[in-house]
Amino acid sequence: MAKEDTRARIIAEGARIVHLKGFHSAGVQEILRAADVPRGSFYFYFSSKEEFGLALIDYYMEYFLGRMDAHFRSSGSSPLTSLRAFFNEKLEDFRDAGFQGGCPIGNLAQEMGDLNEAFQSKLREALEQITERIAHCIRSAQEQNEIDPALDPLKTADFILNSWEGTLMRMKVANDDEPLLVFDRMVFEHLLGQ
Amino acid sequence: MAKEDTRARIIAEGARIVHLKGFHSAGVQEILRAADVPRGSFYFYFSSKEEFGLALIDYYMEYFLGRMDAHFRSSGSSPLTSLRAFFNEKLEDFRDAGFQGGCPIGNLAQEMGDLNEAFQSKLREALEQITERIAHCIRSAQEQNEIDPALDPLKTADFILNSWEGTLMRMKVANDDEPLLVFDRMVFEHLLGQ
Repeated sequence: MAKEDTRARIIAEGARIVHLKGFHSAGVQEILRAADVPRGSFYFYFSSKEEFGLALIDYYMEYFLGRMDAHFRSSGSSPLTSLRAFFNEKLEDFRDAGFQGGCPIGNLAQEMGDLNEAFQSKLREALEQITERIAHCIRSAQEQNEIDPALDPLKTADFILNSWEGTLMRMKVANDDEPLLVFDRMVFEHLLGQ
Repeated sequence: MAKEDTRARIIAEGARIVHLKGFHSAGVQEILRAADVPRGSFYFYFSSKEEFGLALIDYYMEYFLGRMDAHFRSSGSSPLTSLRAFFNEKLEDFRDAGFQGGCPIGNLAQEMGDLNEAFQSKLREALEQITERIAHCIRSAQEQNEIDPALDPLKTADFILNSWEGTLMRMKVANDDEPLLVFDRMVFEHLLGQ
């Protein structure tokens, strides 16, 4: 039980540090120090840095999907309005974070996606889970005549997610909200607008 | 003169290695070895790894903008057809590369964009130069009634570039051309289609 608690603390601190610095740059000792765990005990909790990285993806996804599901469950708006509001809620988060960090899943996909097969398949699955939720929203919006039924829900959702990831990458160098405002306008007024 | 040649060789080899592994992960000694330059002589050519990284951005951009300009100059097609063909040419490149590497500028933006101010401003400028060329294309297409004049050329170009960058990130984990095909269809048949 204590071992599980410590492991969870390492993951939580690791998630924060990897989000800001990247997976390769985040040192194991730095993460242990932040988690207040004795130097050198990393391999008591994880068989490898890879296993730790894969656990980070689960951690990020549990948070993100939980938040996404809570948003859609509690939203009293139409599916399209609710989807737009979700992205604009994230925009507020990024304003608060000074446009730093971006998407932890997107960062790992960029850094590790073509270097490590275990990361690749886990990240592919993670992004597909997000896509599936966006697609569900698009289908509901189509049933309510909010979105053109000619748009393929899954491909449209994939495109929106990929565009969002690129938007967050651009945000890091723009250091302002302009890329996010452009995303909002282009996706919701032009692509999905009727 | 010999010093300049050696520097150029380090940049060319460094560009290849950083493209595949990322900036932090690419070791200085590994790059020198690939460039066939004596171990330990890196700081004879660059004041810092940062200066080397900034030189890489110039190197990537010179190649990319050169290719982009040559494509549009030699294209006998309409502006919109020519823009679509440019992205599809890149799709063929990525097929040949086994969907590895992605965009060197996007990779650096993701990795370094919010960590280092010199990278941030240089990468912002680089992405703006690409945006400007896409916007020029969109303006020409609007003049020829190929694209809805209601679309703001610069914002549309920014969105297309950001979507493309996110598409290349997704490609790394998808390990196939599906994200690129989705980009092509969503941008050229839905967003810009009339």
